[in-house]
Amino acid sequence: MKKIAVLTTGGDAPGMNPAIRSVVRYGIGRGLEVMGVFRGWWGLINEELKVLSHRSVSGIIGQGGTILKTARCVEFRSREGQDRAYETIKKNNIDGLVVIGGNGSFTAAHEFYKQYGIPCVGIAASIDNDVNGLDYTVGTDTAINTALDAIDKIRDTATSMERIFVVEVMGRGSGFIALTVALAGGCEDVIIPEIKVDMENVCHDIVHGNLIGKMSWIVVVAEGAGKADDVANKITEMTGLETRTVVLGHVQRGGRPTAVSRDLALNLGRAAVDCLLAGKKDIALGMASGKIAEVAFETAIMKKELKIEQFYKLVKNLT
Amino acid sequence: MKKIAVLTTGGDAPGMNPAIRSVVRYGIGRGLEVMGVFRGWWGLINEELKVLSHRSVSGIIGQGGTILKTARCVEFRSREGQDRAYETIKKNNIDGLVVIGGNGSFTAAHEFYKQYGIPCVGIAASIDNDVNGLDYTVGTDTAINTALDAIDKIRDTATSMERIFVVEVMGRGSGFIALTVALAGGCEDVIIPEIKVDMENVCHDIVHGNLIGKMSWIVVVAEGAGKADDVANKITEMTGLETRTVVLGHVQRGGRPTAVSRDLALNLGRAAVDCLLAGKKDIALGMASGKIAEVAFETAIMKKELKIEQFYKLVKNLT
Amino acid sequence: MKKIAVLTTGGDAPGMNPAIRSVVRYGIGRGLEVMGVFRGWWGLINEELKVLSHRSVSGIIGQGGTILKTARCVEFRSREGQDRAYETIKKNNIDGLVVIGGNGSFTAAHEFYKQYGIPCVGIAASIDNDVNGLDYTVGTDTAINTALDAIDKIRDTATSMERIFVVEVMGRGSGFIALTVALAGGCEDVIIPEIKVDMENVCHDIVHGNLIGKMSWIVVVAEGAGKADDVANKITEMTGLETRTVVLGHVQRGGRPTAVSRDLALNLGRAAVDCLLAGKKDIALGMASGKIAEVAFETAIMKKELKIEQFYKLVKNLT
Amino acid sequence: MKKIAVLTTGGDAPGMNPAIRSVVRYGIGRGLEVMGVFRGWWGLINEELKVLSHRSVSGIIGQGGTILKTARCVEFRSREGQDRAYETIKKNNIDGLVVIGGNGSFTAAHEFYKQYGIPCVGIAASIDNDVNGLDYTVGTDTAINTALDAIDKIRDTATSMERIFVVEVMGRGSGFIALTVALAGGCEDVIIPEIKVDMENVCHDIVHGNLIGKMSWIVVVAEGAGKADDVANKITEMTGLETRTVVLGHVQRGGRPTAVSRDLALNLGRAAVDCLLAGKKDIALGMASGKIAEVAFETAIMKKELKIEQFYKLVKNLT
Repeated sequence: MKKIAVLTTGGDAPGMNPAIRSVVRYGIGRGLEVMGVFRGWWGLINEELKVLSHRSVSGIIGQGGTILKTARCVEFRSREGQDRAYETIKKNNIDGLVVIGGNGSFTAAHEFYKQYGIPCVGIAASIDNDVNGLDYTVGTDTAINTALDAIDKIRDTATSMERIFVVEVMGRGSGFIALTVALAGGCEDVIIPEIKVDMENVCHDIVHGNLIGKMSWIVVVAEGAGKADDVANKITEMTGLETRTVVLGHVQRGGRPTAVSRDLALNLGRAAVDCLLAGKKDIALGMASGKIAEVAFETAIMKKELKIEQFYKLVKNLT
Repeated sequence: MKKIAVLTTGGDAPGMNPAIRSVVRYGIGRGLEVMGVFRGWWGLINEELKVLSHRSVSGIIGQGGTILKTARCVEFRSREGQDRAYETIKKNNIDGLVVIGGNGSFTAAHEFYKQYGIPCVGIAASIDNDVNGLDYTVGTDTAINTALDAIDKIRDTATSMERIFVVEVMGRGSGFIALTVALAGGCEDVIIPEIKVDMENVCHDIVHGNLIGKMSWIVVVAEGAGKADDVANKITEMTGLETRTVVLGHVQRGGRPTAVSRDLALNLGRAAVDCLLAGKKDIALGMASGKIAEVAFETAIMKKELKIEQFYKLVKNLT
Repeated sequence: MKKIAVLTTGGDAPGMNPAIRSVVRYGIGRGLEVMGVFRGWWGLINEELKVLSHRSVSGIIGQGGTILKTARCVEFRSREGQDRAYETIKKNNIDGLVVIGGNGSFTAAHEFYKQYGIPCVGIAASIDNDVNGLDYTVGTDTAINTALDAIDKIRDTATSMERIFVVEVMGRGSGFIALTVALAGGCEDVIIPEIKVDMENVCHDIVHGNLIGKMSWIVVVAEGAGKADDVANKITEMTGLETRTVVLGHVQRGGRPTAVSRDLALNLGRAAVDCLLAGKKDIALGMASGKIAEVAFETAIMKKELKIEQFYKLVKNLT
Repeated sequence: MKKIAVLTTGGDAPGMNPAIRSVVRYGIGRGLEVMGVFRGWWGLINEELKVLSHRSVSGIIGQGGTILKTARCVEFRSREGQDRAYETIKKNNIDGLVVIGGNGSFTAAHEFYKQYGIPCVGIAASIDNDVNGLDYTVGTDTAINTALDAIDKIRDTATSMERIFVVEVMGRGSGFIALTVALAGGCEDVIIPEIKVDMENVCHDIVHGNLIGKMSWIVVVAEGAGKADDVANKITEMTGLETRTVVLGHVQRGGRPTAVSRDLALNLGRAAVDCLLAGKKDIALGMASGKIAEVAFETAIMKKELKIEQFYKLVKNLT
């Protein structure tokens, strides 16, 4: 293996840049030439890539987003698109790929590997933390702290004006962000896709709280479990109490990566290069049980089951 | 003058707590007894108030929101409500009021003063910065930095995914927040209530930018000038380009006050006490031309004209 | 078990407050009465403690420091002091203790348990992350992010003025903070107690960097491995280059706990109560292998060996 | 005037980058060619400069430091150095200079203008805020918020451990930062170069505070008024109380510029270009009385008198 390429695909996550930095510098240190592909699979299809030098990744360790840019690429789903991507790889003598992204990226990488046999190692980078077989992915910690910071701010108004707030956080298929920020933010309730919500119960708690003088209330909703407005309307309908909503949205994707997101990204970048050099492929890397873990793409893209009962109960226990 | 009361009304703003701290401690230092009224006018009507000691305001200088809580109070608009508030004032031997809030608060305070003659001094605290005759109010600087922080984060995704974002910030009657964050965030366009927007122009710039390779775009909209979704739909309709929206909402109200918000609040607290002791009344205090300024309530509550042409042009000039 | 007491001892760490909150609320939920002891062991000796209600821990989840205050207590090292502490425990019918702190606290708790048999469970809270048998303690993540934030800022000047900086971070016996922030901050070198430093090597790298145009340099030093000034003087002596120092100091102890610090604290609070109720004692709780782990006090207070070679090498590999 | 050059000199300040961005983009918009000079005067002497395009200043609006780098340049004090700088200017057909920096920079620029007649406009950028005739310079607001953030964190430990802290902040000749953060941080005392300190008084307050139960204390010292260690030793000597020190140092120079620092920088960049085009020269630009102000270099470099009595008294009044 003499030359590898690195690309970022899917939604951007804070920590992609340190991951790129690590792949490039560690790869060069191990004697490889490293190319950067722009806009994910699109760049492979359209031959938008270039050799990255040690210097080219200076000063990006603390930047959100990805200097390689990212995109969701429809063409890559077709055989024709994949063929063109493979041509680029051959033409540029690329011996291995590092794919930084989430489940969608790994599904594509897995298909591509099966079809063309080009060794592919994934770095799990996704704020949703929904890669199966892994406890933690690059970017999650940053997104959680961003959401927590917002909730701390909303708490100021909730307390001062004695109001109910419904705050919608990211997490289409996973309640991980919602659950962790609800706990860390001292939120009174949380609604996630993994657990069926009982709105009567939620509203009962609110009314009961009001009776004993607890007038402010923050309910966190994972986007995959419902819209903030719908939840708020339901609460108003059932309790008669005015309810405000905040949808945190894309703010959660950006920002300077936290220490955890950076260190994980840097370690995974190194591990990805080591894996390729050791002949490993068709696997995603992330953290599991406090260590760097390898998980087959096939496993990684399966539905992740969140072990959260105790966590979920704790939110309610501490309210 | 031996006893004064302080209250916070209207929407909470970061810096209300240091303002309270200053009124209480400086007031005590000048020989006054200071009472804190809870939930704004509602607390006067319902006699929810108590004497605040030097210690009672410890540790609040860096907290968002208001320890006295705040509320919007319908009862106070009626003569009956005002009578009851006045009774509370008489019963508790209160000689003067410090009202911390925005335009709505000052309108009420002005009416109350006219009716009952109780000396009232206002401290301008409103994130919207819409008090006429003043350049800066308590809380504005914090809200702007919160919005800027969010826009910096959104920029990471906008650049990485080469997307158009419409970001809605607070400002019902005023484009102050929108304009300052659009400039500071390097945003490509801004839509404010003070200036009629030409959507064709906005879209022309976007399309032109695309042609010369500028693929990411952030348009800031003041809530008083339109809904983010409407603006985004219009852009998609006119350009065919996918457009995302973020509504920052209540996040902008909370959070630890910045140095500017705290220092202004602390200075205004002192000034308010000095004003009452000097026999001044029916005035609001804020910053104008870099100094603490007094402005009659009657003036303060008039429509504020924003002098922004140069600022607005600069946003476009620097894109 | 009907009544337990909770105390914080040793240096404060961000997350102690959410830990207290969790012990109190979860404890009450499980039918216990929970007393809070002030100023650590000192409060036991001097009978400064009180029952904590559900409400008494409102609003502290996001606050640094500890509402119970903390102290280093010499009297507790004497038999007389311990006797008085035990008397307080008996007099107040306290059946178990939750001790929130680090190694010093656990040493004392272990001795106390051996002597008087009072069940003691520790919650590992120490920014240094030096509790043996545990991967992560409460407060570490916050301290690391604070240090990282400072290093990012120093980087701006290092780059702009093309200067060498030596930055001293906390860690008397452990290089954990130094190593993680050096990696996350993209620092060029790191000096820790666990690995003998070769200053000639450090200086050689700096001079070599200068020759190839790399003019700015940040060296992180753990306080246990040397003084920033000494390191800087050595560098200037050996290279002739001007070198600046920053000692981050106590800034690293405070601040709003991060999501990781809060969630860990909250989970450990619950676990501590569960342990006491299950009859467990003489153990410290923290995180190991991604899960909550129990480790005997005797083990916890032994010298922790940091497995850091790969981490250390990575800092150098990525420079 | 067809071509101008921009340079940053002296210590870096957060906001220099947005100032550069504004000079470049606004300058181009007004039909000028804009060159960037590297490392301040050094770059003029050594002809290190290049034309800056609109794109070259993309993405720097939120970055601390300066992309043009900065240096303190001894050679420029000699006639020979100045001659060489002037040659560069002639050779590159530069018609005017924008100098971004503080007092030292303006002294040099003023001399240079007197000698060679090249029009020079300064943008006041200095965290110390010590430019005479101006109320506010670029970078000050960011530095103050950074220092305040540190003091808020130190407060957590001061309160939890009931300790005295002496915190040294930047400000060689000016107590501006010290005073504003001491007030905003609720600090108990402040020592600045402008006012002779009475250590007996400081210590008396501390001892008195102790007697009435106020056990934690933060004293802010401007670096120009003394060393933190000396002040701490004095306090320990006079009161017998343990005292800790923190020297914030270079952390205060860096970081993402606040909204105020950015907007001021952007407006001054525009104003500097407008001034040069209008034939103005030998002046520095900053904010005074809430507006952009022009002040002759000769005035700007005189000793600035801080009007701070009321501010100073307020710190003590609110303790």
